[in-house]
Amino acid sequence: MENQITDTNLIFKYENGTMQEQFDEIVSEFPLTIFLGREEFATMVCSPDYLEELIFGFLASEGVIRVYDDVKSLQIDEGKGYAYVELKNDQSTSKEYHSKRFIGSCCGKSRQFYFHNDARTAKTSTSAMQITADKCISLMNELQNSSIVFQETGGVHNAGLFSKDEMIINRADIGRHNALDKILGYCVINRVPVRDKIIAFSGRISSEVLIKAAKIGVGIILSKSAPTNLAIQLANDLNITAVGFIRGNSFNVYSHSHRILEK
Amino acid sequence: MENQITDTNLIFKYENGTMQEQFDEIVSEFPLTIFLGREEFATMVCSPDYLEELIFGFLASEGVIRVYDDVKSLQIDEGKGYAYVELKNDQSTSKEYHSKRFIGSCCGKSRQFYFHNDARTAKTSTSAMQITADKCISLMNELQNSSIVFQETGGVHNAGLFSKDEMIINRADIGRHNALDKILGYCVINRVPVRDKIIAFSGRISSEVLIKAAKIGVGIILSKSAPTNLAIQLANDLNITAVGFIRGNSFNVYSHSHRILEK
Repeated sequence: MENQITDTNLIFKYENGTMQEQFDEIVSEFPLTIFLGREEFATMVCSPDYLEELIFGFLASEGVIRVYDDVKSLQIDEGKGYAYVELKNDQSTSKEYHSKRFIGSCCGKSRQFYFHNDARTAKTSTSAMQITADKCISLMNELQNSSIVFQETGGVHNAGLFSKDEMIINRADIGRHNALDKILGYCVINRVPVRDKIIAFSGRISSEVLIKAAKIGVGIILSKSAPTNLAIQLANDLNITAVGFIRGNSFNVYSHSHRILEK
Repeated sequence: MENQITDTNLIFKYENGTMQEQFDEIVSEFPLTIFLGREEFATMVCSPDYLEELIFGFLASEGVIRVYDDVKSLQIDEGKGYAYVELKNDQSTSKEYHSKRFIGSCCGKSRQFYFHNDARTAKTSTSAMQITADKCISLMNELQNSSIVFQETGGVHNAGLFSKDEMIINRADIGRHNALDKILGYCVINRVPVRDKIIAFSGRISSEVLIKAAKIGVGIILSKSAPTNLAIQLANDLNITAVGFIRGNSFNVYSHSHRILEK
């Protein structure tokens, strides 16, 4: 079964005072349930492409796997929306903490994590890369121009993985976290080094998005929207440069501005 | 402690080829952990206003409570971001199903639910109300004009509860589900009848948004964005009229178009 990222539907269009039937392109939402061994682990609703990347990225993000070889087998039943994962070493600790709040002073550290799995898998960036202001603008433009689905239907989140000079891949999803998990999955599957990479994202930099960038391991995240206050705190703490409101020839730098050069 | 829906931060602005420090208004993200009795139930990240409504709405949406009187006491510690809920009848069944996929044929029905709690609490609409095309456009405009935070910072989701003629309340949140849970909480706390009400929403009608509308109990949902294919299936099934892409003098009706009159 082939799943499509968009679908065609018959709708009623109201225009010039009258209602008429016509066909319209609609964004697909696909529910995917992941089983770890025999146990149901999580259900996510996603855009149905790059499912293998999504699953690897999600498991890495949740701390269930660290590297590609931690997975013994993966079978996806697209008809049912089920994915069956067998791990090499069956640890069941992560499930317990799944979406549980991270409560505790954590050795007096000020880090603003709210979920156990984030505290375990988000990394402080050690990236030494710097880019110019012009690059911030041109990389963001490249992302904006890259996604056909994004342009046609609006509202799909679009994330891109960039080297200093160009886009490596971009992934679109109705779920903001899924678009970033697909990129993380791509990096895990293809063993891509990430310290010298950049993430550009179409939507707001929420704490969740910032944490995903930290889990991928990049030092710079670019967006055309603004970050939240919690995302800025996390960016400061995790040594990540958050650049937002990239529009026309201007933008804002919210944290670790040393990585962005005027020229 | 007073929590603010926005915050002021010092940022670096790049404009006309140079970087300069200035103050900027940033959207707040507030982590709130709900305890049911002594047990941690869920952590959500939200915009920190109308927390009582949010908690009541979230608990009703998850099927933990049905009416206001199901809650014996609620204490909110805004400094810590903790809310302590004591129920009159302490049922612990819902926790087990929290975010678990709803698997099974469900008496041969075709209903497209993906989580147990949704299958329990989303209602098929019995609303007989109808509104004109002009009202669809003017109610959406009213929502758009209502939210200062939405206009100033962009990207905050804005939801409004409307009668046939005017806005009753609107709620903004960084989380789309939270904005709708605040409205559901308002209805639960104030015992508002909902069959003759309308929801207008600033963002995309995802399956999650459509299900929240069904949980609130309205028959019509308006949006300036498009629904997903799954949201349209659910709207057809739950007898809800989904109206999207309300822009200028045109819009699309995706389901149960009998509720929208040309004049």
